[in-house]
Amino acid sequence: MKIAILGTGRVGQTLAGKFVQLGHEVTMGSRDAANPKAVQWAASAGGSARADSFSGAAQGAEVILNATAGTASLQALQSAGSANLDGKVLIDVANPLDFSAGFPPSLSVVNTDSLAETIQRVFPAARVVKTLNTMTADLMVNPQLVAGGDHDVFVAGDDGDAKAVVVGLLGELGWEAGHIRDLGGLDAARALEMYLPLWLRLMMTFDQSGRFNIRIVSA
Amino acid sequence: MKIAILGTGRVGQTLAGKFVQLGHEVTMGSRDAANPKAVQWAASAGGSARADSFSGAAQGAEVILNATAGTASLQALQSAGSANLDGKVLIDVANPLDFSAGFPPSLSVVNTDSLAETIQRVFPAARVVKTLNTMTADLMVNPQLVAGGDHDVFVAGDDGDAKAVVVGLLGELGWEAGHIRDLGGLDAARALEMYLPLWLRLMMTFDQSGRFNIRIVSA
Repeated sequence: MKIAILGTGRVGQTLAGKFVQLGHEVTMGSRDAANPKAVQWAASAGGSARADSFSGAAQGAEVILNATAGTASLQALQSAGSANLDGKVLIDVANPLDFSAGFPPSLSVVNTDSLAETIQRVFPAARVVKTLNTMTADLMVNPQLVAGGDHDVFVAGDDGDAKAVVVGLLGELGWEAGHIRDLGGLDAARALEMYLPLWLRLMMTFDQSGRFNIRIVSA
Repeated sequence: MKIAILGTGRVGQTLAGKFVQLGHEVTMGSRDAANPKAVQWAASAGGSARADSFSGAAQGAEVILNATAGTASLQALQSAGSANLDGKVLIDVANPLDFSAGFPPSLSVVNTDSLAETIQRVFPAARVVKTLNTMTADLMVNPQLVAGGDHDVFVAGDDGDAKAVVVGLLGELGWEAGHIRDLGGLDAARALEMYLPLWLRLMMTFDQSGRFNIRIVSA
Protein backbone atom coordinates (compact mmCIF):
# COMPACT_ATOMS: atom_id res chain seq x y z
CA MET A 1 0.00 0.00 0.00
CA LYS A 2 1.06 3.59 -0.52
CA ILE A 3 1.23 5.07 2.96
CA ALA A 4 2.03 8.66 3.88
CA ILE A 5 3.26 9.20 7.42
CA LEU A 6 2.83 12.84 8.42
CA GLY A 7 5.25 13.70 11.20
CA THR A 8 8.93 13.00 11.79
CA GLY A 9 8.86 12.36 15.54
CA ARG A 10 9.32 9.07 17.31
CA VAL A 11 5.82 7.82 16.55
CA GLY A 12 6.11 8.73 12.87
CA GLN A 13 9.57 7.22 12.50
CA THR A 14 8.61 4.01 14.28
CA LEU A 15 5.46 3.45 12.25
CA ALA A 16 7.12 4.47 8.98
CA GLY A 17 10.02 2.08 9.57
CA LYS A 18 7.72 -0.82 10.34
CA PHE A 19 5.52 -0.22 7.30
CA VAL A 20 8.63 -0.22 5.07
CA GLN A 21 9.68 -3.54 6.61
CA LEU A 22 6.22 -4.87 5.84
CA GLY A 23 6.72 -4.01 2.18
CA HIS A 24 4.61 -0.88 1.91
CA GLU A 25 5.57 2.19 -0.11
CA VAL A 26 6.09 4.75 2.60
CA THR A 27 6.60 8.49 2.27
CA MET A 28 7.36 10.55 5.34
CA GLY A 29 5.80 13.98 5.05
CA SER A 30 6.87 17.10 6.86
CA ARG A 31 6.60 20.87 6.48
CA ASP A 32 9.77 20.96 4.45
CA ALA A 33 10.49 18.23 1.89
CA ALA A 34 14.15 18.60 2.82
CA ASN A 35 13.53 18.09 6.55
CA PRO A 36 16.78 16.45 7.69
CA LYS A 37 15.04 13.97 10.00
CA ALA A 38 12.79 12.75 7.19
CA VAL A 39 15.57 12.66 4.60
CA GLN A 40 17.81 10.73 6.98
CA TRP A 41 14.97 8.34 7.82
CA ALA A 42 14.28 7.66 4.14
CA ALA A 43 17.97 7.01 3.44
CA SER A 44 18.33 4.57 6.33
CA ALA A 45 14.99 2.83 5.82
CA GLY A 46 15.88 1.88 2.26
CA GLY A 47 13.34 0.17 0.04
CA SER A 48 10.88 2.59 -1.49
CA ALA A 49 11.08 4.96 1.50
CA ARG A 50 10.88 8.62 0.53
CA ALA A 51 10.77 12.00 2.23
CA ASP A 52 8.50 14.72 0.88
CA SER A 53 6.42 17.70 1.89
CA PHE A 54 3.09 17.11 3.64
CA SER A 55 1.28 17.58 0.34
CA GLY A 56 3.79 15.59 -1.71
CA ALA A 57 3.45 12.69 0.70
CA ALA A 58 -0.35 12.84 0.87
CA GLN A 59 -0.88 13.25 -2.87
CA GLY A 60 0.02 9.74 -3.99
CA ALA A 61 -1.00 7.93 -0.82
CA GLU A 62 -3.88 5.53 -0.30
CA VAL A 63 -3.56 5.72 3.46
CA ILE A 64 -2.45 8.83 5.34
CA LEU A 65 -1.35 8.56 8.93
CA ASN A 66 -1.33 11.64 11.14
CA ALA A 67 1.58 11.33 13.55
CA THR A 68 2.11 15.03 14.09
CA ALA A 69 1.76 16.69 17.49
CA GLY A 70 -1.94 16.99 18.23
CA THR A 71 -1.87 20.75 18.59
CA ALA A 72 -0.20 21.06 15.16
CA SER A 73 -2.23 18.42 13.34
CA LEU A 74 -4.82 20.68 11.70
CA GLN A 75 -2.11 22.91 10.30
CA ALA A 76 -0.17 19.90 9.00
CA LEU A 77 -3.28 18.50 7.34
CA GLN A 78 -4.10 21.89 5.81
CA SER A 79 -0.59 21.85 4.34
CA ALA A 80 -1.18 18.36 3.04
CA GLY A 81 -4.13 19.81 1.17
CA SER A 82 -7.78 18.98 1.48
CA ALA A 83 -7.91 17.57 -2.07
CA ASN A 84 -5.10 15.15 -1.21
CA LEU A 85 -7.10 13.79 1.72
CA ASP A 86 -10.44 13.33 -0.07
CA GLY A 87 -11.60 9.74 -0.03
CA LYS A 88 -8.40 8.60 1.67
CA VAL A 89 -8.17 6.54 4.81
CA LEU A 90 -6.82 9.01 7.38
CA ILE A 91 -5.45 7.28 10.45
CA ASP A 92 -5.21 9.64 13.39
CA VAL A 93 -2.80 8.45 16.07
CA ALA A 94 -2.20 11.91 17.55
CA ASN A 95 -3.16 13.19 20.98
CA PRO A 96 -4.22 16.79 21.57
CA LEU A 97 -1.74 17.33 24.38
CA ASP A 98 -1.29 20.88 25.61
CA PHE A 99 2.10 21.30 27.31
CA SER A 100 1.74 25.07 27.78
CA ALA A 101 1.37 24.67 31.55
CA GLY A 102 4.10 22.02 31.84
CA PHE A 103 3.97 18.31 32.53
CA PRO A 104 1.69 16.41 32.69
CA PRO A 105 -0.06 18.10 29.80
CA SER A 106 -3.77 18.83 29.69
CA LEU A 107 -5.91 18.16 26.62
CA SER A 108 -6.53 20.98 24.13
CA VAL A 109 -9.74 19.32 22.90
CA VAL A 110 -11.76 17.30 25.36
CA ASN A 111 -15.04 15.94 26.68
CA THR A 112 -17.71 16.74 24.04
CA ASP A 113 -15.21 16.84 21.16
CA SER A 114 -11.95 15.25 20.10
CA LEU A 115 -9.04 15.90 17.79
CA ALA A 116 -10.19 13.11 15.47
CA GLU A 117 -13.69 14.55 15.18
CA THR A 118 -12.25 18.02 14.60
CA ILE A 119 -10.14 16.65 11.75
CA GLN A 120 -13.19 14.88 10.32
CA ARG A 121 -15.25 18.09 10.42
CA VAL A 122 -12.53 20.14 8.72
CA PHE A 123 -11.89 17.44 6.09
CA PRO A 124 -15.34 15.88 5.63
CA ALA A 125 -14.31 13.75 2.64
CA ALA A 126 -11.42 12.11 4.48
CA ARG A 127 -12.23 8.76 6.11
CA VAL A 128 -10.87 9.29 9.59
CA VAL A 129 -10.09 6.38 11.89
CA LYS A 130 -8.67 6.87 15.38
CA THR A 131 -6.32 4.19 16.66
CA LEU A 132 -2.99 3.49 18.38
CA ASN A 133 -2.98 6.77 20.35
CA THR A 134 -3.20 4.89 23.65
CA MET A 135 0.34 3.51 23.83
CA THR A 136 4.00 4.21 23.24
CA ALA A 137 5.43 3.88 19.71
CA ASP A 138 7.41 0.69 20.37
CA LEU A 139 4.25 -1.17 21.30
CA MET A 140 2.25 0.11 18.33
CA VAL A 141 4.47 -1.82 15.94
CA ASN A 142 5.37 -4.69 18.24
CA PRO A 143 2.62 -5.71 20.65
CA GLN A 144 4.64 -8.83 21.49
CA LEU A 145 7.05 -6.65 23.47
CA VAL A 146 4.64 -6.80 26.40
CA ALA A 147 2.83 -9.81 27.89
CA GLY A 148 3.13 -11.79 24.66
CA GLY A 149 0.81 -9.36 22.91
CA ASP A 150 -2.02 -10.06 25.34
CA HIS A 151 -3.29 -6.47 25.55
CA ASP A 152 -5.58 -4.23 23.57
CA VAL A 153 -5.72 -1.62 20.84
CA PHE A 154 -8.84 0.37 19.99
CA VAL A 155 -10.35 1.65 16.75
CA ALA A 156 -13.07 4.24 16.21
CA GLY A 157 -14.44 5.66 12.98
CA ASP A 158 -17.59 6.40 11.03
CA ASP A 159 -16.51 4.68 7.80
CA GLY A 160 -16.70 0.89 8.10
CA ASP A 161 -14.56 0.22 5.04
CA ALA A 162 -11.84 2.57 6.23
CA LYS A 163 -11.94 0.90 9.62
CA ALA A 164 -11.53 -2.49 7.94
CA VAL A 165 -8.40 -1.22 6.14
CA VAL A 166 -7.03 -0.02 9.47
CA VAL A 167 -7.84 -3.30 11.21
CA GLY A 168 -5.94 -5.06 8.40
CA LEU A 169 -2.90 -2.83 8.93
CA LEU A 170 -3.07 -3.42 12.71
CA GLY A 171 -3.01 -7.13 11.97
CA GLU A 172 0.13 -6.64 9.88
CA LEU A 173 1.70 -4.78 12.81
CA GLY A 174 1.16 -7.90 14.92
CA TRP A 175 -2.15 -7.20 16.65
CA GLU A 176 -4.32 -10.29 17.07
CA ALA A 177 -7.93 -9.89 15.97
CA GLY A 178 -9.24 -10.54 19.49
CA HIS A 179 -7.20 -7.65 20.83
CA ILE A 180 -8.46 -5.07 18.32
CA ARG A 181 -11.46 -3.48 20.04
CA ASP A 182 -13.89 -1.63 17.80
CA LEU A 183 -15.48 1.12 19.89
CA GLY A 184 -17.88 2.24 17.16
CA GLY A 185 -18.20 5.70 15.66
CA LEU A 186 -15.57 8.42 15.58
CA ASP A 187 -17.10 10.09 18.65
CA ALA A 188 -15.46 7.26 20.60
CA ALA A 189 -12.20 9.10 19.89
CA ARG A 190 -13.17 11.31 22.84
CA ALA A 191 -12.81 8.30 25.10
CA LEU A 192 -9.51 7.27 23.52
CA GLU A 193 -8.02 10.75 23.83
CA MET A 194 -9.33 11.19 27.39
CA TYR A 195 -7.55 7.97 28.33
CA LEU A 196 -4.23 9.76 27.83
CA PRO A 197 -4.17 11.40 31.27
CA LEU A 198 -4.38 7.93 32.85
CA TRP A 199 -1.65 6.67 30.55
CA LEU A 200 0.54 9.62 31.52
CA ARG A 201 -0.07 8.99 35.24
CA LEU A 202 0.82 5.34 34.83
CA MET A 203 3.95 6.34 33.00
CA MET A 204 4.88 8.73 35.82
CA THR A 205 4.18 6.34 38.70
CA PHE A 206 4.48 2.84 37.31
CA ASP A 207 6.78 2.49 34.33
CA GLN A 208 8.63 5.44 32.85
CA SER A 209 9.70 3.38 29.85
CA GLY A 210 6.10 3.60 28.69
CA ARG A 211 6.23 -0.06 27.77
CA PHE A 212 2.90 -0.98 29.28
CA ASN A 213 -0.65 -1.15 28.07
CA ILE A 214 -4.08 -2.13 29.26
CA ARG A 215 -5.93 -5.35 28.70
CA ILE A 216 -9.67 -5.55 29.05
CA VAL A 217 -10.65 -8.46 31.28
CA SER A 218 -14.17 -9.75 31.68
CA ALA A 219 -16.03 -12.68 33.17
CA MET B 1 -14.63 0.87 61.64
CA LYS B 2 -17.46 3.36 61.64
CA ILE B 3 -18.25 3.98 57.98
CA ALA B 4 -20.78 6.41 56.54
CA ILE B 5 -21.96 5.66 53.03
CA LEU B 6 -23.48 8.77 51.46
CA GLY B 7 -25.88 7.78 48.70
CA THR B 8 -28.58 5.13 48.39
CA GLY B 9 -28.01 4.08 44.77
CA ARG B 10 -26.56 0.83 43.55
CA VAL B 11 -22.97 1.77 44.34
CA GLY B 12 -23.87 2.93 47.85
CA GLN B 13 -26.01 -0.12 48.59
CA THR B 14 -23.40 -2.55 47.28
CA LEU B 15 -20.52 -1.03 49.23
CA ALA B 16 -22.62 -0.57 52.38
CA GLY B 17 -23.77 -4.19 52.29
CA LYS B 18 -20.25 -5.50 51.88
CA PHE B 19 -18.85 -3.38 54.68
CA VAL B 20 -21.58 -4.68 57.02
CA GLN B 21 -20.63 -8.25 56.06
CA LEU B 22 -17.02 -7.39 56.87
CA GLY B 23 -18.08 -6.38 60.39
CA HIS B 24 -17.97 -2.61 60.06
CA GLU B 25 -20.52 -0.27 61.63
CA VAL B 26 -22.20 1.19 58.58
CA THR B 27 -24.64 4.07 58.38
CA MET B 28 -26.24 4.92 55.05
CA GLY B 29 -26.75 8.65 54.72
CA SER B 30 -29.25 10.41 52.53
CA ARG B 31 -31.04 13.76 52.34
CA ASP B 32 -33.87 12.43 54.48
CA ALA B 33 -33.13 10.17 57.45
CA ALA B 34 -36.38 8.37 56.62
CA ASN B 35 -35.40 7.71 52.98
CA PRO B 36 -37.24 4.43 52.26
CA LYS B 37 -34.34 2.93 50.29
CA ALA B 38 -31.91 3.57 53.13
CA VAL B 39 -34.33 2.39 55.82
CA GLN B 40 -35.07 -0.77 53.87
CA TRP B 41 -31.38 -1.37 53.28
CA ALA B 42 -30.60 -1.01 56.99
CA ALA B 43 -33.39 -3.40 57.95
CA SER B 44 -32.27 -6.07 55.48
CA ALA B 45 -28.54 -5.64 56.10
CA GLY B 46 -28.95 -6.36 59.82
CA GLY B 47 -26.00 -6.11 62.17
CA SER B 48 -25.29 -2.53 63.17
CA ALA B 49 -26.57 -1.12 59.87
CA ARG B 50 -28.42 2.16 60.25
CA ALA B 51 -30.04 4.78 58.06
CA ASP B 52 -29.65 8.46 58.86
CA SER B 53 -29.42 11.92 57.33
CA PHE B 54 -26.19 12.92 55.56
CA SER B 55 -25.08 14.78 58.69
CA GLY B 56 -26.23 12.08 61.09
CA ALA B 57 -24.27 9.49 59.12
CA ALA B 58 -21.15 11.62 58.78
CA GLN B 59 -21.08 12.81 62.39
CA GLY B 60 -20.03 9.58 64.06
CA ALA B 61 -18.06 8.13 61.16
CA GLU B 62 -14.32 7.58 60.90
CA VAL B 63 -14.52 7.01 57.18
CA ILE B 64 -17.04 8.72 54.89
CA LEU B 65 -17.66 7.37 51.43
CA ASN B 66 -19.20 9.59 48.76
CA ALA B 67 -21.39 7.40 46.56
CA THR B 68 -23.79 10.12 45.49
CA ALA B 69 -24.23 11.16 41.87
CA GLY B 70 -21.21 13.27 40.92
CA THR B 71 -23.28 16.31 39.99
CA ALA B 72 -25.01 16.19 43.42
CA SER B 73 -21.96 15.36 45.53
CA LEU B 74 -21.06 18.87 46.70
CA GLN B 75 -24.60 19.50 47.85
CA ALA B 76 -24.69 16.17 49.69
CA LEU B 77 -21.39 16.91 51.41
CA GLN B 78 -22.57 20.41 52.36
CA SER B 79 -25.59 18.73 53.96
CA ALA B 80 -23.28 16.32 55.77
CA GLY B 81 -21.65 19.38 57.27
CA SER B 82 -18.10 20.61 56.94
CA ALA B 83 -17.40 20.04 60.65
CA ASN B 84 -18.45 16.40 60.29
CA LEU B 85 -15.90 15.89 57.52
CA ASP B 86 -12.93 17.55 59.20
CA GLY B 87 -10.03 15.17 59.65
CA LYS B 88 -12.05 12.26 58.29
CA VAL B 89 -11.00 9.96 55.51
CA LEU B 90 -13.34 10.90 52.66
CA ILE B 91 -13.43 8.25 49.94
CA ASP B 92 -14.74 9.64 46.67
CA VAL B 93 -16.03 6.96 44.32
CA ALA B 94 -18.33 9.30 42.36
CA ASN B 95 -18.03 10.35 38.73
CA PRO B 96 -19.02 13.82 37.55
CA LEU B 97 -21.29 12.51 34.80
CA ASP B 98 -23.51 15.05 33.07
CA PHE B 99 -26.51 13.34 31.47
CA SER B 100 -28.20 16.60 30.42
CA ALA B 101 -27.50 15.87 26.74
CA GLY B 102 -28.39 12.18 27.00
CA PHE B 103 -26.27 9.05 26.86
CA PRO B 104 -23.33 8.65 26.88
CA PRO B 105 -22.86 11.43 29.41
CA SER B 106 -20.12 14.03 29.25
CA LEU B 107 -18.11 15.09 32.29
CA SER B 108 -19.20 18.14 34.28
CA VAL B 109 -15.66 18.67 35.61
CA VAL B 110 -12.76 17.69 33.40
CA ASN B 111 -9.20 18.11 32.15
CA THR B 112 -7.50 20.59 34.54
CA ASP B 113 -9.78 19.79 37.47
CA SER B 114 -11.76 16.88 38.89
CA LEU B 115 -14.66 16.23 41.21
CA ALA B 116 -12.32 14.87 43.87
CA GLU B 117 -10.13 17.98 43.79
CA THR B 118 -13.22 20.19 43.90
CA ILE B 119 -14.40 18.36 47.01
CA GLN B 120 -10.94 18.73 48.56
CA ARG B 121 -10.92 22.48 47.89
CA VAL B 122 -14.39 22.99 49.38
CA PHE B 123 -13.61 20.81 52.42
CA PRO B 124 -9.89 21.41 52.96
CA ALA B 125 -9.75 19.55 56.29
CA ALA B 126 -11.23 16.36 54.83
CA ARG B 127 -8.70 13.77 53.71
CA VAL B 128 -9.96 12.95 50.23
CA VAL B 129 -8.95 9.76 48.45
CA LYS B 130 -10.26 8.88 44.98
CA THR B 131 -10.76 5.21 44.25
CA LEU B 132 -13.13 2.57 42.80
CA ASN B 133 -14.79 5.00 40.35
CA THR B 134 -13.46 3.05 37.36
CA MET B 135 -15.71 -0.02 37.55
CA THR B 136 -19.21 -1.29 38.19
CA ALA B 137 -20.39 -1.78 41.79
CA ASP B 138 -20.34 -5.59 41.72
CA LEU B 139 -16.63 -5.60 40.95
CA MET B 140 -15.75 -3.02 43.59
CA VAL B 141 -16.71 -5.44 46.34
CA ASN B 142 -15.83 -8.66 44.55
CA PRO B 143 -12.86 -8.42 42.19
CA GLN B 144 -12.86 -12.22 41.94
CA LEU B 145 -15.97 -11.99 39.75
CA VAL B 146 -13.71 -11.28 36.79
CA ALA B 147 -10.51 -13.05 35.69
CA GLY B 148 -9.86 -14.36 39.21
CA GLY B 149 -9.28 -10.84 40.46
CA ASP B 150 -6.41 -10.28 38.04
CA HIS B 151 -7.23 -6.64 37.23
CA ASP B 152 -6.59 -3.25 38.74
CA VAL B 153 -7.98 -0.59 41.03
CA PHE B 154 -6.45 2.86 41.43
CA VAL B 155 -6.00 5.22 44.36
CA ALA B 156 -5.12 8.91 44.37
CA GLY B 157 -4.85 11.31 47.28
CA ASP B 158 -2.67 13.89 48.96
CA ASP B 159 -2.82 12.38 52.48
CA GLY B 160 -0.63 9.30 52.73
CA ASP B 161 -2.22 8.07 55.97
CA ALA B 162 -5.70 8.39 54.55
CA LYS B 163 -4.58 6.53 51.44
CA ALA B 164 -3.20 3.74 53.65
CA VAL B 165 -6.59 3.41 55.36
CA VAL B 166 -8.25 3.16 51.95
CA VAL B 167 -5.73 0.61 50.71
CA GLY B 168 -6.53 -1.43 53.84
CA LEU B 169 -10.25 -1.29 53.10
CA LEU B 170 -9.63 -2.26 49.45
CA GLY B 171 -7.73 -5.28 50.76
CA GLU B 172 -10.75 -6.21 52.88
CA LEU B 173 -12.93 -5.95 49.77
CA GLY B 174 -10.72 -8.57 48.12
CA TRP B 175 -8.21 -6.50 46.17
CA GLU B 176 -4.71 -7.97 46.14
CA ALA B 177 -1.92 -5.55 47.02
CA GLY B 178 -0.31 -5.92 43.59
CA HIS B 179 -3.51 -4.80 41.90
CA ILE B 180 -3.95 -1.61 43.93
CA ARG B 181 -2.18 1.05 41.86
CA ASP B 182 -1.22 4.23 43.67
CA LEU B 183 -1.24 7.05 41.11
CA GLY B 184 0.06 9.69 43.53
CA GLY B 185 -1.59 12.96 44.47
CA LEU B 186 -5.25 13.83 44.24
CA ASP B 187 -4.71 15.56 40.90
CA ALA B 188 -4.50 12.03 39.46
CA ALA B 189 -8.26 11.93 40.04
CA ARG B 190 -8.48 13.84 36.74
CA ALA B 191 -7.09 10.79 34.98
CA LEU B 192 -9.40 8.41 36.85
CA GLU B 193 -12.49 10.47 36.07
CA MET B 194 -11.46 10.99 32.44
CA TYR B 195 -11.20 7.22 32.08
CA LEU B 196 -14.98 7.01 32.45
CA PRO B 197 -15.76 7.81 28.81
CA LEU B 198 -13.67 4.80 27.77
CA TRP B 199 -15.40 2.64 30.37
CA LEU B 200 -18.78 3.80 29.04
CA ARG B 201 -17.76 3.02 25.44
CA LEU B 202 -16.58 -0.43 26.44
CA MET B 203 -19.86 -0.99 28.25
CA MET B 204 -21.77 0.08 25.13
CA THR B 205 -19.78 -1.98 22.62
CA PHE B 206 -18.23 -4.84 24.53
CA ASP B 207 -20.11 -5.90 27.65
CA GLN B 208 -23.32 -4.22 28.72
CA SER B 209 -23.27 -6.04 32.05
CA GLY B 210 -20.39 -3.75 32.99
CA ARG B 211 -18.60 -6.73 34.48
CA PHE B 212 -15.22 -5.94 32.99
CA ASN B 213 -12.18 -4.02 34.05
CA ILE B 214 -8.71 -3.17 32.88
CA ARG B 215 -5.48 -4.78 33.84
CA ILE B 216 -2.16 -3.01 33.36
CA VAL B 217 0.31 -5.23 31.55
CA SER B 218 4.00 -4.51 31.20
CA ALA B 219 7.19 -6.16 30.06
